[in-house]
Amino acid sequence: MKSSISNYSEKDFMRRAIKLALQGEGFVHPNPMVGAVIVRDNKILAEGYHHNYGNLHAERDALKNAAEQNISVEGAELFVTLEPCCHHGKQPPCTQAIIDAKIKKVYIGSRDPNPLVNGKGVQILKDAGIEVIQDFLKEECDSINKIFFHYIKYKTPYVILKYAMTLDGQTATYTKDSKWISGNSSRTNVHKTRANVSAVLTGIQTALADNPMLNCRLEDGKKHFNPVRIVLDSSVQLKKDSALVRTAKEIPVIDVCAENLSSEESERMTELKNLGVEFIQIESCEGKIDLEKLLVLLGERGIDSILVESGGFLNASFLFQKKNPLVNEIHVYLAPKFFGNDGTSIFNPVRGLGVELAKDALTLKKPEIEFFDDDILLKYEV
Amino acid sequence: MKSSISNYSEKDFMRRAIKLALQGEGFVHPNPMVGAVIVRDNKILAEGYHHNYGNLHAERDALKNAAEQNISVEGAELFVTLEPCCHHGKQPPCTQAIIDAKIKKVYIGSRDPNPLVNGKGVQILKDAGIEVIQDFLKEECDSINKIFFHYIKYKTPYVILKYAMTLDGQTATYTKDSKWISGNSSRTNVHKTRANVSAVLTGIQTALADNPMLNCRLEDGKKHFNPVRIVLDSSVQLKKDSALVRTAKEIPVIDVCAENLSSEESERMTELKNLGVEFIQIESCEGKIDLEKLLVLLGERGIDSILVESGGFLNASFLFQKKNPLVNEIHVYLAPKFFGNDGTSIFNPVRGLGVELAKDALTLKKPEIEFFDDDILLKYEV
Repeated sequence: MKSSISNYSEKDFMRRAIKLALQGEGFVHPNPMVGAVIVRDNKILAEGYHHNYGNLHAERDALKNAAEQNISVEGAELFVTLEPCCHHGKQPPCTQAIIDAKIKKVYIGSRDPNPLVNGKGVQILKDAGIEVIQDFLKEECDSINKIFFHYIKYKTPYVILKYAMTLDGQTATYTKDSKWISGNSSRTNVHKTRANVSAVLTGIQTALADNPMLNCRLEDGKKHFNPVRIVLDSSVQLKKDSALVRTAKEIPVIDVCAENLSSEESERMTELKNLGVEFIQIESCEGKIDLEKLLVLLGERGIDSILVESGGFLNASFLFQKKNPLVNEIHVYLAPKFFGNDGTSIFNPVRGLGVELAKDALTLKKPEIEFFDDDILLKYEV
Repeated sequence: MKSSISNYSEKDFMRRAIKLALQGEGFVHPNPMVGAVIVRDNKILAEGYHHNYGNLHAERDALKNAAEQNISVEGAELFVTLEPCCHHGKQPPCTQAIIDAKIKKVYIGSRDPNPLVNGKGVQILKDAGIEVIQDFLKEECDSINKIFFHYIKYKTPYVILKYAMTLDGQTATYTKDSKWISGNSSRTNVHKTRANVSAVLTGIQTALADNPMLNCRLEDGKKHFNPVRIVLDSSVQLKKDSALVRTAKEIPVIDVCAENLSSEESERMTELKNLGVEFIQIESCEGKIDLEKLLVLLGERGIDSILVESGGFLNASFLFQKKNPLVNEIHVYLAPKFFGNDGTSIFNPVRGLGVELAKDALTLKKPEIEFFDDDILLKYEV
């Protein structure tokens, strides 16, 4: 990289920092992804990024890389995708490291979303005589840390709703067969998405029908994060011998059930607790859990993001239970297939709640598109 | 254009000819679209294309344009997207015009699909001492005239199945409201598609429910082709006061009904005939018309292409009635909307016929994608 960039603009250096930041995808969680590039005379001296949760921040990583190669960064410029921290967390403050390294000018992409911190890092740099350019390619820098920014702001998880369907809008044949709708590459990408969220959430019907593991199974030799598995299970029907329960001691499982349980339900809860399943009891109405309250509770537990992988009824609840959808992003894997049906048993991705008139539809904007072999992934912001 | 192309390759000239050919889209039908470019010393001398059915062929149009500007084309090269004709049709043979103009070399894209003609045009040019390069960017040249090539080969119409659906795979809300799923730009594009086919076909249920016109309504000031309107209507239920029947004398309407009609049905047929509706009577089984036979009959009538704009039952028949789908292309307009539903009344684009197992799905390849505002058009080849 060092030799290939020359005569590039400041934007190119920040975009390089963004690209570096993305190398932390799936590993830095719940920290934000951050990248940094140190530049002098339009040439990159050193680069760095936040590799793993608990490890060096991007700025310190870049400074360390420079030092290891005996490269002086005195008087150089630093491009960093997020405002440098100024507090002692897992790592000492990056602002001090930048000052100590005698960096002359700092370009910052995203602002620190924590209003108590926002701007303080900048002020410390300025006070030390460093020139600071703020909000540089801010939108692009913000876009790589949507979960982080959402959670800091709302204290509830960022919710991604995901499903796969055929070109005739079906999630199963009329005999309920659904293996498979999307292809291998699409399914691998779902595992990548799982590695980037705190939790995967499903409904008890899907848990009973498919007996899923809901873990991250990527065979790239790297140690990936496994999301907490959450099952909405108001009357505690989760099976003791399910894949989820059998692995509950290695990868947490949270069963979300109703507040008022029958004695049989309570008994099953005790048994499942002994097998390592955690429980959240929450208000429910006609067997339906109040999802808005659930999100607040999960946020309080530190869960900053959820991937909903469920069936039509739960999808409908996330979209239509409250006045506004409880979803931030929707991932539709569209497979180039037709199942058809018998005209009555139609399984589609949203069921049981909806609008009467087309004009009242929940309406989104143009999606981002990715191809996975012959499948298409459509990513919509809500 | 003339001044902007220089130092271009042969491929660029053929691609220019393709671009010119496409200017005839919606106007040359049932002729193929053809473009031609005359080049000397890597510079374009003149260009032409087939503008309208019955008018000059592309080669003659280009030669005429050169002559009108007093440009000599003697010894020049001709790039033409389709093998020049060598027979007297609506126009005298283009091969003779090329020979008379003393063109030195001809690059040809597509071959004439008619096996009786294929190669004859080339031979005549070669016999006259002209160098001929065949199959030049053949695939790209073929792709602009799919309908033409299909019809010549199979003598049945090229069938495009089109529908619009929401992200939850629905074609109406649970109260049957469907106005509108896709946006204005998408709907304008459907009218463009109508201008490029011989016929639009729908089912009697859609005709009764939506009372559609099924004509081409483009407000671009040009005179567009109006497709024949075909209604599958086995028991002659088409209404006398429907939009289709009221305009049947201006734009043909074909009612396709069963062979054995009751006396009431026959009476209704006579009434509709008096109002200008044509009839095709065809074998049907349990009220379902044999679509394969219908396509043969329509092909015999000179209908080279059909756009199917109907509901789930007829779509399912086109996809699943026979062992192989009776469709060549599928256009899915995907609107960024969710309708949801009541869990029982689910209207999706394919109904009543389908596969039991996911592994037996009708499976296609990666689509072409176009954006129309926030909608996506996915074009699949079958």
